[in-house]
Amino acid sequence: MEIEIATIGGYEEVGRQMTAVRAGEDIVVFDMGLNLSKVLIHDNIQTEGMHSLDLIDMGAIPDDRIMADLEGDVQAIVPTHGHLDHIGAISKLAHRYDAPVVSTPFTNALVEEEFDDEEKFGDSNELITMDPGESMIVGDHGLELEFVNVTHSIIGAINPVLHTPEGAIVYGLDKRMDHSPVLGDPIDMKRFREIGREGEGVLCYIEDCTNANKQGRTPSEAVAREQLKDVMYSLEDYDGGIVATTFSSHISRVTSLVEFAKDIGRQPVLLGRSMEKYSGAAERLGFVDFPDDLGMFGYRRSIDQSFERIMNDGKENFLPVVTGHQGEPRAMLTRMARGETNYDLDDGDKVLFSARVIPEPTNEGQRYQAEKLLGMQGARVYSDIHVSGHLRQEGHYEMLDALQPQHVIPAHQEMSGFAGYVELASDRGYTMDRDLHVTSNGNILQLV
Amino acid sequence: MEIEIATIGGYEEVGRQMTAVRAGEDIVVFDMGLNLSKVLIHDNIQTEGMHSLDLIDMGAIPDDRIMADLEGDVQAIVPTHGHLDHIGAISKLAHRYDAPVVSTPFTNALVEEEFDDEEKFGDSNELITMDPGESMIVGDHGLELEFVNVTHSIIGAINPVLHTPEGAIVYGLDKRMDHSPVLGDPIDMKRFREIGREGEGVLCYIEDCTNANKQGRTPSEAVAREQLKDVMYSLEDYDGGIVATTFSSHISRVTSLVEFAKDIGRQPVLLGRSMEKYSGAAERLGFVDFPDDLGMFGYRRSIDQSFERIMNDGKENFLPVVTGHQGEPRAMLTRMARGETNYDLDDGDKVLFSARVIPEPTNEGQRYQAEKLLGMQGARVYSDIHVSGHLRQEGHYEMLDALQPQHVIPAHQEMSGFAGYVELASDRGYTMDRDLHVTSNGNILQLV
Amino acid sequence: MEIEIATIGGYEEVGRQMTAVRAGEDIVVFDMGLNLSKVLIHDNIQTEGMHSLDLIDMGAIPDDRIMADLEGDVQAIVPTHGHLDHIGAISKLAHRYDAPVVSTPFTNALVEEEFDDEEKFGDSNELITMDPGESMIVGDHGLELEFVNVTHSIIGAINPVLHTPEGAIVYGLDKRMDHSPVLGDPIDMKRFREIGREGEGVLCYIEDCTNANKQGRTPSEAVAREQLKDVMYSLEDYDGGIVATTFSSHISRVTSLVEFAKDIGRQPVLLGRSMEKYSGAAERLGFVDFPDDLGMFGYRRSIDQSFERIMNDGKENFLPVVTGHQGEPRAMLTRMARGETNYDLDDGDKVLFSARVIPEPTNEGQRYQAEKLLGMQGARVYSDIHVSGHLRQEGHYEMLDALQPQHVIPAHQEMSGFAGYVELASDRGYTMDRDLHVTSNGNILQLV
Amino acid sequence: MEIEIATIGGYEEVGRQMTAVRAGEDIVVFDMGLNLSKVLIHDNIQTEGMHSLDLIDMGAIPDDRIMADLEGDVQAIVPTHGHLDHIGAISKLAHRYDAPVVSTPFTNALVEEEFDDEEKFGDSNELITMDPGESMIVGDHGLELEFVNVTHSIIGAINPVLHTPEGAIVYGLDKRMDHSPVLGDPIDMKRFREIGREGEGVLCYIEDCTNANKQGRTPSEAVAREQLKDVMYSLEDYDGGIVATTFSSHISRVTSLVEFAKDIGRQPVLLGRSMEKYSGAAERLGFVDFPDDLGMFGYRRSIDQSFERIMNDGKENFLPVVTGHQGEPRAMLTRMARGETNYDLDDGDKVLFSARVIPEPTNEGQRYQAEKLLGMQGARVYSDIHVSGHLRQEGHYEMLDALQPQHVIPAHQEMSGFAGYVELASDRGYTMDRDLHVTSNGNILQLV
Repeated sequence: MEIEIATIGGYEEVGRQMTAVRAGEDIVVFDMGLNLSKVLIHDNIQTEGMHSLDLIDMGAIPDDRIMADLEGDVQAIVPTHGHLDHIGAISKLAHRYDAPVVSTPFTNALVEEEFDDEEKFGDSNELITMDPGESMIVGDHGLELEFVNVTHSIIGAINPVLHTPEGAIVYGLDKRMDHSPVLGDPIDMKRFREIGREGEGVLCYIEDCTNANKQGRTPSEAVAREQLKDVMYSLEDYDGGIVATTFSSHISRVTSLVEFAKDIGRQPVLLGRSMEKYSGAAERLGFVDFPDDLGMFGYRRSIDQSFERIMNDGKENFLPVVTGHQGEPRAMLTRMARGETNYDLDDGDKVLFSARVIPEPTNEGQRYQAEKLLGMQGARVYSDIHVSGHLRQEGHYEMLDALQPQHVIPAHQEMSGFAGYVELASDRGYTMDRDLHVTSNGNILQLV
Repeated sequence: MEIEIATIGGYEEVGRQMTAVRAGEDIVVFDMGLNLSKVLIHDNIQTEGMHSLDLIDMGAIPDDRIMADLEGDVQAIVPTHGHLDHIGAISKLAHRYDAPVVSTPFTNALVEEEFDDEEKFGDSNELITMDPGESMIVGDHGLELEFVNVTHSIIGAINPVLHTPEGAIVYGLDKRMDHSPVLGDPIDMKRFREIGREGEGVLCYIEDCTNANKQGRTPSEAVAREQLKDVMYSLEDYDGGIVATTFSSHISRVTSLVEFAKDIGRQPVLLGRSMEKYSGAAERLGFVDFPDDLGMFGYRRSIDQSFERIMNDGKENFLPVVTGHQGEPRAMLTRMARGETNYDLDDGDKVLFSARVIPEPTNEGQRYQAEKLLGMQGARVYSDIHVSGHLRQEGHYEMLDALQPQHVIPAHQEMSGFAGYVELASDRGYTMDRDLHVTSNGNILQLV
Repeated sequence: MEIEIATIGGYEEVGRQMTAVRAGEDIVVFDMGLNLSKVLIHDNIQTEGMHSLDLIDMGAIPDDRIMADLEGDVQAIVPTHGHLDHIGAISKLAHRYDAPVVSTPFTNALVEEEFDDEEKFGDSNELITMDPGESMIVGDHGLELEFVNVTHSIIGAINPVLHTPEGAIVYGLDKRMDHSPVLGDPIDMKRFREIGREGEGVLCYIEDCTNANKQGRTPSEAVAREQLKDVMYSLEDYDGGIVATTFSSHISRVTSLVEFAKDIGRQPVLLGRSMEKYSGAAERLGFVDFPDDLGMFGYRRSIDQSFERIMNDGKENFLPVVTGHQGEPRAMLTRMARGETNYDLDDGDKVLFSARVIPEPTNEGQRYQAEKLLGMQGARVYSDIHVSGHLRQEGHYEMLDALQPQHVIPAHQEMSGFAGYVELASDRGYTMDRDLHVTSNGNILQLV
Repeated sequence: MEIEIATIGGYEEVGRQMTAVRAGEDIVVFDMGLNLSKVLIHDNIQTEGMHSLDLIDMGAIPDDRIMADLEGDVQAIVPTHGHLDHIGAISKLAHRYDAPVVSTPFTNALVEEEFDDEEKFGDSNELITMDPGESMIVGDHGLELEFVNVTHSIIGAINPVLHTPEGAIVYGLDKRMDHSPVLGDPIDMKRFREIGREGEGVLCYIEDCTNANKQGRTPSEAVAREQLKDVMYSLEDYDGGIVATTFSSHISRVTSLVEFAKDIGRQPVLLGRSMEKYSGAAERLGFVDFPDDLGMFGYRRSIDQSFERIMNDGKENFLPVVTGHQGEPRAMLTRMARGETNYDLDDGDKVLFSARVIPEPTNEGQRYQAEKLLGMQGARVYSDIHVSGHLRQEGHYEMLDALQPQHVIPAHQEMSGFAGYVELASDRGYTMDRDLHVTSNGNILQLV
């Protein structure tokens, strides 16, 4: 059976991921993501009403025109998890294919919201949910699609495996190797090891190289939780305002914030549109069991009311968990820093960034400015209470050891980001241009 | 009563700490430390036989000749803890003063070893031990010396407080604010708050500024422990060699290494001269309860035998904990990396650095080289499994809040390292040249 | 005679410089500057109509209320050169003092524009010009004010020297040691050496520490010129668009750009409001002799017309020299990058930044974004064609050697920026708190 | 005709360059270099007596065993210039091939010294010299080898071009684009442009990517010369010791040092083994015309005598130009810094590093230590008086524009160093895996 891999997007950047695997006459597409930075560099662009081709020209979504060169039918579109760089183009591109979107329940809930927000295109694709650990047949030629449970900075993350007669294709984006996650199950290394040894083994492994230049092991979420606990418990006696911010989609972190707020005698409140969206979805689907009295407010008016109540009741009794961890100009925390809300920051109040600064100059500038403005109001900043959701080198080492793939393709980075992975894989016996494929967007690799 | 503070050493560097406080006719000296880097830059220098003045000229030990300008008698020499930059000059300088050395039991045990190693001078000073939380009268004029328990990267650390009629002098070197240390009691913030409010309050606070340019809070040792646990548990299934290194004097870290080794089915062994020295002392004094079968070997021959046994019994059953965390050319780990021991590193073996690289180019070069050599033997490196032992900005903020000192003196850094502290203290209302004293080695400050 | 120095602004930042020297009953004020970054962090603030106290509260201009503590009369306000951090507060503060503004002709022309733009306060101060190398008596007690010629990144820069019976006060902001400037005379080191040795010598030297942490010597403008020549000559054969940007006030750099443009067969055109302002003033006052056909356009409409003409005549015949070297969002180059002008950037067109990025995150973010946008239009970027206008360590070494001052005061930086200077001065025998005064805004130092 | 390119060494590092081109039955080898860092990491290794295979195993010299897979005969070995990373393996590998070494006169002189120093192998290869701008036929099938003059940090550098019926193969290592070199002719861009347009054009271009991640243009040697002049002229009045160091092989820099020494009234003296070797060769071959009285001393005893004479005659009359620009432990400058020579450094003496620190931690550590030791003797350090010898991005842009190659192969870096080049080439329309070949050591690329 012929096996081809089309590296459509996310092979020259972190963002707009999309990869297609053709096995015989059937094609499965993994991810359809958005590169948000390509949108934000322009002033005042609203993507909801934009046409796909314009977004392709901007480099914001994958250029899927190369799909025409793959001779087969798309049988499934498989987002690995609900981050925008993996699902953010789905409402722009999926309608072109007569195929269902298959993902885990939490991811599918977020995909659905993407379709709801879309203004230009309809949502003609069926949504199918499948749990981690389960499999299904795709197409009419017996290809099996399996979801292996992985751990990432969002719940519901899986690594899809396409079982072909020539061996398994393991699409390894995005994960870290977490044996003690705060929510959900540990990464299923046992299953990866089995896949590496059963049948024809692994034909090809596509790897998340975000942190491939970083030594050692990405710590577990348990470490971030301990770090957060240490900070929050140290503030137990503080009788003024404490505000926290984190990635809205990082449900386990939000959970820890909520728990520790309770522990130190404060009522947590989630504020901001995306805070409500992600935590609301997680709660509705039963992935998290927040306290009954936990407030979540996404709309301006309800947020305003919430802040008013906090100020009236005494802000020393609350922990607002808000958007704005990167200092985004219009996010909640930045507005608080500019004094645009009715939450008053006083001298000595604490602001917790349970996130790290995404290392890009525009972003660093905005974050710096937000911290400066917070400082001008007297706030004390605790930052970097965080661990990454992506494997470092020793995780890559273990994955190669578990899967023993015939071919590896580094992804989810640009060339300089692949360097650490190439060095590692070369040490493990892989050779560039033979079984180690450093490639770019828009190529088709023939494996069999 | 006249109060003067002589900033003798450690006000232009991290290293060779020494400060004297004169209250009326009595003087108390805090710390007599060594700046090891000033020794190591010269080839083949042995300090044991050197004269004080030569070491002073090299900038290696404090220039205590300014003591002649203080009109009073030294009543006590008080090392705060057992790190070399606080006790390393004691065998060179203490004999000049007719005064006892007063410190906690663990610190005193290490001071005693300093005197034992000394070849040039005798040890005429009496050694007095006092536990954290206790006090004693020094001199004949009613001055009270109190030891407040603090948390640092070594056990037995205290902050000495000299109670004078004009208020307390709090000598704040070295500490972090740890509420969940692995060994010993949490930092005694309650007592600091009392001292800040009782009697005349705090006349002067001398602060450990090592991390004063770093935002946020230094995590607790519990965080480092969780991080270490995460790494070690992730290696539970590895059936080859694992080697760890850390600061020999960091007994709580060594304890965690020993415990987790047992947890993952390996026998820990401590190897290297300083490993034996510090852990041996901690065990003898009852500060730690190591497993009965824990081997500690300091001499070359016993180390060789130990390695032989490890290789014979199967290195997959052991965790050697060795010296060499900074890549020091003659330390155990570097020798292993060069193939100079009979421990064979194989492809895939793991080396854990539970330490961070001290940021100085010579040091970074050596550490880099050690890692390169380890890599050439196939070893996989996990580094930075560590948290600092020094306060960051929010710790400084809390200390100022607790003590409310009339005067503050930043110490344990060079000028650029004081910058963050000066900014913080200025925000809290202190003013340079009035009550915030940025100074240098060799000055005398008259407070009353 | 009593001598006091009030360190009013610019001792905790680069920006809002102001220092007052009282000698007996007479006071001379050096510089009244603006810290623009404190304005820009707020959205949409126009300083022209703002009250001084509001600007003081923002930290934008010096807090001169400490002047009340100096017992004497202000006899002169002396801006050293025309950069905003030295003259930008003059229209807000000078009217409070019954004293003339004394500066060199070019500086005075720029001060006059400051007064013209002011909307809140009048301009009651007399403007007196004095050339480098000249002196005048200030006040009625025989104090002599001398202007020593120095070299900086703007023409007309001097170091004022106040000769008192107790020795000279040399105000050393801002300069580099340039023996081959492109415009004007070399730095007058001979005169500095004389001042160091005549009469009572130098009582106090206030030093420009901008680059005090940088090793070696700041290169001459001749080096930047050679670098610029190398870039521009290498583009001689390019037949598309070339655009350059630099500091508008950097007349010698603009001169080099104009000359080399001619050399490679292009017509230079200066575009942007501040380009016209500074170059126009320099030409009117005869400090530079631009080609007769050099266009300078500051207003939107004339700039638009100019771009139209360039596009019609063929952009390969022109070198637009525009504002926007830091990627400022509303500057000309950024507008070109966003496609908001009618100058079309084509694939391969060259953009020359004859400036370095000011190292502050907000700024770095904006500059990065400007370059990204230029790149999206196909432009090729040449950056850092520049040398700094401020002394490095070896310049400081030479100044100390020339002046041999009794007291030194580092200025024009924050604490961490003083570190290199303190180390250098300590090596030269100065001692903190005795004759080396690291201070902050708002202090008064009594020298005699 | 079949065309194959074997990327033997220097495609995963800067160092041990070696590339073979097979055109039909004939093979030409470009460069045989040494990666010195792979030797130095081991203690006390002398390469002179070592076998090739041991050096290959260490990663020190190219693994040329892949040559067996090329079906043809080696007709020429062509070193591009005399740096060790291009000729340092020639005495270990060339004897295996029955082919002459063809290079420019200066390069050949250095190759000859390599053969002379070799202790293990004989030198059976004929040495043929060819000047830049000339051509010769290699093999019996009409292949033409041309030397195009380029500019680099050593004299005698060329880019060899192999003219085949399928187009030219241009081997582009190492160069910068210098139109105003201090010695020799400018880079021959005219010829490159011709080659790009004549006959079949350029089939393949192999590019020097050392600086491919750096924006803009590498300045000409004229800029480094101006910078050096600025520093040295500024020291004209200094009446103590001045010492300079630079790359021994950088004859144009040495020339500038010699000239400016004369200009400021000092007698230059070249000291150190490699100083004598390179400058001696350059002078003998007539590439430089040093003053008659210029001393060059390579042996310990003559250096000692020279230093003695300098001290006796007054060191203010001399400029020793010595080895040790990277702080190498055994080089002359480091020995001076340790006080191991009889040249006394006094307080205020100047040390000029006309070189930049090679960015590798071991090296940075050594250099730092050398500077510290110099500082301990009172010396003042001027560093980075230098420009690189390698193209930056705009040079790469121009080369692509001139040659318009069908295929490009980035070389002389590791993967992360290629990133900037891949981005640039992709912008110019090249595509990974099609005509842009990012590869590794030990691959064979079939172009036709």
